[in-house]
Amino acid sequence: MAFELEITHTQGRARAGTFTTPHGTVQTPAFMAVGTLATVKGLDPLDLRAMGAQMILANAYHLHLRPSDALVRQMGGLHRFMAWDGSILTDSGGFQVFSLEGLRKIDEDGVDFRSHIDGSSRRFTPESVMRIERNLGADVIMQFDHVPPGQSDVPVARDAMERSLRWLARCRDEFARLLREDADAPTPEQALFPIVQGGIHAELRRESARAIVDMGAWRGFGVGGLSVGEAKPDMYAMLEVVDDVLPTDRPRYLMGVGYPEDLVEGVRRGVDLFDCVAPTRMGRNGAALTQDGRINLRNARHRDDPGPLDEGCDCTVCTRFSRAYVRHLFTSDEILGLRLLSLHNVHFLVALMQQARTTLADGTFDAWSTEWLARYLAGER
Amino acid sequence: MAFELEITHTQGRARAGTFTTPHGTVQTPAFMAVGTLATVKGLDPLDLRAMGAQMILANAYHLHLRPSDALVRQMGGLHRFMAWDGSILTDSGGFQVFSLEGLRKIDEDGVDFRSHIDGSSRRFTPESVMRIERNLGADVIMQFDHVPPGQSDVPVARDAMERSLRWLARCRDEFARLLREDADAPTPEQALFPIVQGGIHAELRRESARAIVDMGAWRGFGVGGLSVGEAKPDMYAMLEVVDDVLPTDRPRYLMGVGYPEDLVEGVRRGVDLFDCVAPTRMGRNGAALTQDGRINLRNARHRDDPGPLDEGCDCTVCTRFSRAYVRHLFTSDEILGLRLLSLHNVHFLVALMQQARTTLADGTFDAWSTEWLARYLAGER
Ligand SMILES: [Zn+2]
Ligand SMILES: [Zn+2]
Repeated sequence: MAFELEITHTQGRARAGTFTTPHGTVQTPAFMAVGTLATVKGLDPLDLRAMGAQMILANAYHLHLRPSDALVRQMGGLHRFMAWDGSILTDSGGFQVFSLEGLRKIDEDGVDFRSHIDGSSRRFTPESVMRIERNLGADVIMQFDHVPPGQSDVPVARDAMERSLRWLARCRDEFARLLREDADAPTPEQALFPIVQGGIHAELRRESARAIVDMGAWRGFGVGGLSVGEAKPDMYAMLEVVDDVLPTDRPRYLMGVGYPEDLVEGVRRGVDLFDCVAPTRMGRNGAALTQDGRINLRNARHRDDPGPLDEGCDCTVCTRFSRAYVRHLFTSDEILGLRLLSLHNVHFLVALMQQARTTLADGTFDAWSTEWLARYLAGER
Repeated sequence: MAFELEITHTQGRARAGTFTTPHGTVQTPAFMAVGTLATVKGLDPLDLRAMGAQMILANAYHLHLRPSDALVRQMGGLHRFMAWDGSILTDSGGFQVFSLEGLRKIDEDGVDFRSHIDGSSRRFTPESVMRIERNLGADVIMQFDHVPPGQSDVPVARDAMERSLRWLARCRDEFARLLREDADAPTPEQALFPIVQGGIHAELRRESARAIVDMGAWRGFGVGGLSVGEAKPDMYAMLEVVDDVLPTDRPRYLMGVGYPEDLVEGVRRGVDLFDCVAPTRMGRNGAALTQDGRINLRNARHRDDPGPLDEGCDCTVCTRFSRAYVRHLFTSDEILGLRLLSLHNVHFLVALMQQARTTLADGTFDAWSTEWLARYLAGER
């Protein structure tokens, strides 16, 4: 049944399961590649399928501006527009709008901002964002939330957290109306996820999570405002606080977090879904993820290295191309270089979550994750 | 047997056949995608295989400079380096070196030039170019020739044509030496193609072709120095002159020519192989080839067009994506846009040559090519 999470294995707080959406099942824990503008940069949907990806992310803010959610809907919705028939989640644009320093004005009703593309005046409210996400037609849509700056003190973090709760109520009501009155949308049956806010303040996180749980029968939960500059132990602590409050039978999505060590630490703390631009962004910067930490292909030592990007990786890049070749492409500004690095890096995280699922299934997750982290972090040092 | 051309069907001067190389068979006529730097810009070798490409081109000049032919050889040769197990032809670098206005000095022995990358001093001779192409390991390698400017008058064109003949003799001798003495090269059995020069002067073309034929038992012939600014009827006339002289049982490769109408007109005049950067370059500029001429995706009329780039094209782009989506990618500077357009455009020319083969096989080539040209050129007007 759509939006059910069937948990099949647990170890400590970690869980493996299957999350069902109108566009298929997603084995969790899972990494969602980011397709901001209805394309995971450099990759084809067929690449994502081939590497085992089941759910990807797109962005309501960016797609509203270009090519517009109206056009995406006219073209049959996101799935058809970008030729991806798997599951999709859209972020609400809260994070983007609140990142537009100097370009936005916040009031209780919503946010005025200027497009980063053409400077045109725009306004987002909880209601308008629900309509945008309805038009786009993702399977899971995120609430419009107030995202405070990283490292906000308690008063600032509380204000944003409380506004996010009030906006959640408005998102919930508008979403319910759309489900009833806009049945012709590209994906008639969608799920709205609330977002737990509260910075790195345990009491705020707890309060946010409890209030959200009391507000509806949610099909899943976002955890936002993390990995924005705080120390990693602070982020991990917040995950434990949230894990204590949220119901265990619904997926938890840790927003915007996608470094390999954060994925493993997140799974250990009950997170089911992740997304991050890091693997494709690193790819464009010449970096490749390996079991022994990141390497940069710009480094001259890879010039004549016949080995793969990562020993033991079974991706379509590592099974065919050498570091020497990828470096050659990269130093020659050949776009195949970006593509191959992005392919490998996204595959790396998708496969990492596959390993987590496998070890959860056979009861070896604790040992595997400890060893994996030790090896990876030793290489990063 | 390697480097045999089996001609299976003819109609007028046009021929269909099978050319065999150490890396498989190439059904002719065929379009070779250009992989200057050991990558067809934006495409994966698997894409090329999927669209039916059997032979591609790489460039000795560019690969000598970056990453160097020595490194390519150390990595197992071009086929292994770029993970393309089909046939490869390398151009000699003559065209590139002679295009470096102000950066080169020509004498009878060879050419001094400066690298367009770092300005370093380099020297190409017929012998050094043979060694470079031996290291790269393509199946077919081209002679080092003197390429005069387009529109050269008879004295200039004759001088370059005659020097190219003298250089051909040196290429032939050095190539024979390498076959004997450098048996460990990545592709031990290669074929050297001479290049017919002579500008748009029929008597020079005829003289060049006759002299070349007398100089050896060549496995095939290049026709160079065309599509460099001359009128199309002049180019087509030269092809007929050359067709009259060259043996019919060897492949003819029209160098650097790859607009759709030129391919069809070339096949009509006995050409078997083509290459051109146009389809990938057009892709990077937002242009797509269609049966009704080129279109540019930047044009606003494609904004909400749900149709494919080309009606009736069965490529992996046209069967999945709309013009609206490709335009969105292109206007958003998403590299998937370049990739999809390049994929479609290269497929278009590969499939066009497939159509020529099919109609040659069933005896309808004349009618098909006339209709095809009329429709395409009507759209281009
Ligand atoms: Zn890999
Ligand atoms: Zn197509």
